[in-house]
Amino acid sequence: MSVTSVPGFVAAGMACGVKPSGADDLAMVATADGSTVTAAGVFTSNLMTAPPVLVSRDHLATTGGRAAAVVVNSGNANAATGQSGRADAETMCALTAGAVGCQTDEVLVCSTGLIGFPLPMEAIAPAIQTVAAAMTTEGGPAAARAMMTTDTVPRTTVATGLTVEGSTFTVGGVAKGAAMLEPNMATMLAVLTTDAEVDAATATGLLRTAVGVSFNCLTVDGAESTNDTVLLLASGSAGPVEPDVLGAALSDACRDLAVQMADDAEGSTKTVFLTVTGAASDAEAAKGARDTANCQLVKCSWYGEDPYWGRIAAEMGAAGIAFDPTTISISYGGQVVYADEAVQPVDADALTAHMAGRQIDLDVDLGQGDGSAWIVTTDLSHAYIDENMRTS
Amino acid sequence: MSVTSVPGFVAAGMACGVKPSGADDLAMVATADGSTVTAAGVFTSNLMTAPPVLVSRDHLATTGGRAAAVVVNSGNANAATGQSGRADAETMCALTAGAVGCQTDEVLVCSTGLIGFPLPMEAIAPAIQTVAAAMTTEGGPAAARAMMTTDTVPRTTVATGLTVEGSTFTVGGVAKGAAMLEPNMATMLAVLTTDAEVDAATATGLLRTAVGVSFNCLTVDGAESTNDTVLLLASGSAGPVEPDVLGAALSDACRDLAVQMADDAEGSTKTVFLTVTGAASDAEAAKGARDTANCQLVKCSWYGEDPYWGRIAAEMGAAGIAFDPTTISISYGGQVVYADEAVQPVDADALTAHMAGRQIDLDVDLGQGDGSAWIVTTDLSHAYIDENMRTS
Repeated sequence: MSVTSVPGFVAAGMACGVKPSGADDLAMVATADGSTVTAAGVFTSNLMTAPPVLVSRDHLATTGGRAAAVVVNSGNANAATGQSGRADAETMCALTAGAVGCQTDEVLVCSTGLIGFPLPMEAIAPAIQTVAAAMTTEGGPAAARAMMTTDTVPRTTVATGLTVEGSTFTVGGVAKGAAMLEPNMATMLAVLTTDAEVDAATATGLLRTAVGVSFNCLTVDGAESTNDTVLLLASGSAGPVEPDVLGAALSDACRDLAVQMADDAEGSTKTVFLTVTGAASDAEAAKGARDTANCQLVKCSWYGEDPYWGRIAAEMGAAGIAFDPTTISISYGGQVVYADEAVQPVDADALTAHMAGRQIDLDVDLGQGDGSAWIVTTDLSHAYIDENMRTS
Repeated sequence: MSVTSVPGFVAAGMACGVKPSGADDLAMVATADGSTVTAAGVFTSNLMTAPPVLVSRDHLATTGGRAAAVVVNSGNANAATGQSGRADAETMCALTAGAVGCQTDEVLVCSTGLIGFPLPMEAIAPAIQTVAAAMTTEGGPAAARAMMTTDTVPRTTVATGLTVEGSTFTVGGVAKGAAMLEPNMATMLAVLTTDAEVDAATATGLLRTAVGVSFNCLTVDGAESTNDTVLLLASGSAGPVEPDVLGAALSDACRDLAVQMADDAEGSTKTVFLTVTGAASDAEAAKGARDTANCQLVKCSWYGEDPYWGRIAAEMGAAGIAFDPTTISISYGGQVVYADEAVQPVDADALTAHMAGRQIDLDVDLGQGDGSAWIVTTDLSHAYIDENMRTS
């Protein structure tokens, strides 16, 4: 149920000493025989782009979308580290290339953790040969574990589809992400593998679309990170796949990983599925949804299991989108709580039970047009603050 | 030190029964003799504009900027209440007009509190005559107290200047605001009085400018309310005042009230003065400042007294503004903690002492141009969540 569910890929994870806790912090995913395959990536749009993102982008450009391996460390983001950070990211790729038997620019690299501290290369460098040698066809979950920062459980996924010739192809994935989660993209790393046959340009387009309907529909705290990366390695061994079929499988895999991130987001006690309909456009629906999802006051209501719609209406009104205040309606758990400019009668017991569950469904209809959007988000709890009030 | 510090104005506050706690919840500010004077207002841009805001706007338009009294209730925002809410707001004005001896459209009205519940007019209506009769030249602080919601202390201010003829004029103010604080405007109500002589159009322009450099530079939680209102009554008894002199006094009064709001914001333990310089434009500086001030992760760092600049850099990078990541520098308490793409040596004891204080000074220089902005904001604490997790 991960990157190694796909034939032809191996992976491993281990502890190399980046994290003071001694937890696993070095992961590798690669083709089993060191051969290069089609590769694609989608990256953060943060201007403070971290050096590993710059290096992976450059490598994909140089190779025209080919790679043999991905190396990932957790515990340190190698971000805001300037030229020395860039040299460290290149060194990670060079050492990985030597270990798996490919060129340096055929390796992609990710880092996640604290921003602004030099990578402890004395811990990472000697471990790269070790983790490469440990890679197996069962190693995907171990790689996912070694990518974790404040995640409490590893995130893995698998999706399948049919090739042009009617056989099965597989998409597997590993990911991390628990805070600094916000479009674009939800702050996170994901590595996907597939045996579908696809060229680099098509793969990049399909991956971008999949990210758009999954990680870009996830927000935990409105903070976009410096290191967001989604990578895809596609071996082609299963044969050609229709682009929309591959796209659907990639979207399924990414959506599954995105919901897992919300379910395990820092300190969260609620996963909220917020749908906005009746907007003047999809873009306006998305703006209203995102602003509401990121509103501290609204998040506190969810934590308190309070179906208070007043703040929802106020956020929509402040979002700078068009609608008629007399037509907005708001529903929790399928029950309309506000419509026609007035509080509506509800089945109070059913509403209380819905708000007490892990998943909250919130629907806002603006009564303006046909635009719609959905977003998955979380509440704001004491534990989120505890997690984030000190970096050490 | 309030609206009644200005000669010719009276005020009062009392409990009429809107708040279940029995705390004061009805305030009135008026000219001492019931005469109309120049009046101006600045209001929320939230699309879910509350009925009292609609009514006050209409009254100012009808009279061409004249008013004799302002009536304010706390405990209920009379927002998202539709036509009946509008009728209630008009009734509050009509009853006030009867009590002070002016026309209904010469009264302005404000409400603050929970959104979406009908005003308890059976409590408010009979009390309006009582509060009007209780108004005195000492009543400003009592009016401020009756405007409070989750504020823990009443907010009052006074500023002075010289008229054209060299005598003193006064600006006095009362205000409330502790959450849902965000430009435009910081979610709040303020009533200002002055004895300066000014026409309505000039007063409106000066008030708008004063709001721009005060309440619009305050954000607590990024939530813009449905009821934001700043009102000014100007009697003219002190004689003509140069517009820039009156503008300076209005700005001083509004800035003082804005900082008071941050100092007493819900659950806050820190008041943070964030200055951004070196941006490509003032607007880009303001965007970077506001995004950073509203970032949950950054707010948690302040609560933890952690001068962690990594999240500051990441927020600036995500703000969609132009700068060169190699030139950004970040300072806490006057000490540069990050510059030249690297952590900088600091006086750790001094930095720790600065972060432990109530006021934190954070300066970000983007090294890009001459644009600058400042904003005052707060941290995010457990107590904020406690305050907001349930409406009842």
